[in-house]
Amino acid sequence: MRLASFRAGGKDRIGLSIDEETLVEIEGLSLLHLIESGAEVRKGRETFSASQVVWHPPVRRPSKICCLALNNSANSDRILQGPKHPAMFIKPASSLLGHLGSIECKPHYGRVHPEPELAVVIGKTAKNVAARDAYDYVFGYTIHNDITSPSMRAEDTFHYRAIHPKAGDAKAIEYVDTWVSYPGRYKCCDTFACMGPWLVTKDEIADPHNLAVSCSHQGQLVTEDNTENLFYKIPKVIEFLSSHLTLLPGDIVSMGTALKKSAQGGAVQNIDLNTLGGPVSVTIEKLGTLTNDVVHI
Amino acid sequence: MRLASFRAGGKDRIGLSIDEETLVEIEGLSLLHLIESGAEVRKGRETFSASQVVWHPPVRRPSKICCLALNNSANSDRILQGPKHPAMFIKPASSLLGHLGSIECKPHYGRVHPEPELAVVIGKTAKNVAARDAYDYVFGYTIHNDITSPSMRAEDTFHYRAIHPKAGDAKAIEYVDTWVSYPGRYKCCDTFACMGPWLVTKDEIADPHNLAVSCSHQGQLVTEDNTENLFYKIPKVIEFLSSHLTLLPGDIVSMGTALKKSAQGGAVQNIDLNTLGGPVSVTIEKLGTLTNDVVHI
Repeated sequence: MRLASFRAGGKDRIGLSIDEETLVEIEGLSLLHLIESGAEVRKGRETFSASQVVWHPPVRRPSKICCLALNNSANSDRILQGPKHPAMFIKPASSLLGHLGSIECKPHYGRVHPEPELAVVIGKTAKNVAARDAYDYVFGYTIHNDITSPSMRAEDTFHYRAIHPKAGDAKAIEYVDTWVSYPGRYKCCDTFACMGPWLVTKDEIADPHNLAVSCSHQGQLVTEDNTENLFYKIPKVIEFLSSHLTLLPGDIVSMGTALKKSAQGGAVQNIDLNTLGGPVSVTIEKLGTLTNDVVHI
Repeated sequence: MRLASFRAGGKDRIGLSIDEETLVEIEGLSLLHLIESGAEVRKGRETFSASQVVWHPPVRRPSKICCLALNNSANSDRILQGPKHPAMFIKPASSLLGHLGSIECKPHYGRVHPEPELAVVIGKTAKNVAARDAYDYVFGYTIHNDITSPSMRAEDTFHYRAIHPKAGDAKAIEYVDTWVSYPGRYKCCDTFACMGPWLVTKDEIADPHNLAVSCSHQGQLVTEDNTENLFYKIPKVIEFLSSHLTLLPGDIVSMGTALKKSAQGGAVQNIDLNTLGGPVSVTIEKLGTLTNDVVHI
């Protein structure tokens, strides 16, 4: 099933995408509520033309969006030093934007580029889940365009002298030269988590690590990759994350950027949406195409 | 008013803290719902002894917890390079822990230390709010012990060659030596956001930037500071954050660590909860004392 959140006829609704043209309303308050309650999908009476609705992100208020960092095999030779496990940051629900919504750019954001990602929608509360059981906790999949501003990343990076305890004296400290960066702006601005158009339930995806992923900008192909190239796969990621923080129903785990350049050249980092504008699209096999425009505010 | 979330008599409730000993139940589903709806506080019938309840964080599922980084005047001489504006990271609702709950530590977390912080509870949707209007968007204040693992921070820091566009060729890239760190574990593990015991509505706090803050560990004073030493103050912080991301009712803005060492010596960084255990307390003038123990799991 392809489950969507949208606005039509002056009302926020949830529905089933029957084909490219048609949405049938389903019963329920929200997809979050449907996932949390474990309720069956029951069709309502109303049908809408896909071209006439305003798309919301499928889960409108997940408690968190966990985003994997540098999780692509193509990164390996660029990492001089890094962890031997998945690394992650959090994006908030307020950063979500639905299909066909406009990414908000301001002049001082500097460079703003797309990052095409497979996103996993969690189905039930997951704490200390073993890798072999991980798919039991998956509800489905969607597309995440993880909008990123490397300019704000550079600005919000500190080079500082961190306070550390000094060995041998319980009350003494010493300073250690440290770099630390904070993703609160460069990953979390409003509209920086484009998601949708819908979520696809897991029964329809035999192998989430064998899906072609591509990103296009103004009709030009930028990247062509496959989810098989993600370094840490879904079972390992759910095991690792859930051993540190509880994943809740409706939470999103975004698996990291598909960044293999297309034969046409360029890279997602070449696509500065702030100067070039949109539209930008991410396509994932069996999941669909997520398209967003850019607005300067 | 001091508004609390708690469990008593086998049921999750919200209430009014009348004095150190007594909680009176109030009507409503949750403090989040109360804040969102703007409803008046109406006392219910039941009264509970504070010593018999299980404390929840005041707002149990905020959409985000925005945490200011390195926002204390005492940091200024330690920053070799950093932004000229507030820097911020997000903690998720799943990291929250109420008063008297136990902070979960695992051996591989390494060092885990407390960070005493004033937390602002947002009262209404804030986007592009001017500093002069910022307090209109504040519902109240609470205490946040922003538990931090510098060991996991060091592990989850990458030194890598970032991809940047190359000047003069729209499809060419170059590599730039970059440090980036991800707070998804070192700030966001379950129980790493101790909060409470209650929230105090803003009418009771004449000046949130003139409040004594202290942190004690096993009865020993560790830090003694004052919210006047926070570098960026609440109006500027709400203006800056809300110009990038929408703050929602119930969201928390944690203002940064009060880290001035007490006369007894030591620093929060000397308090390794993973080896020393608890209890750890944060006291903020007019807000109360938040105490948490440590459990090794």
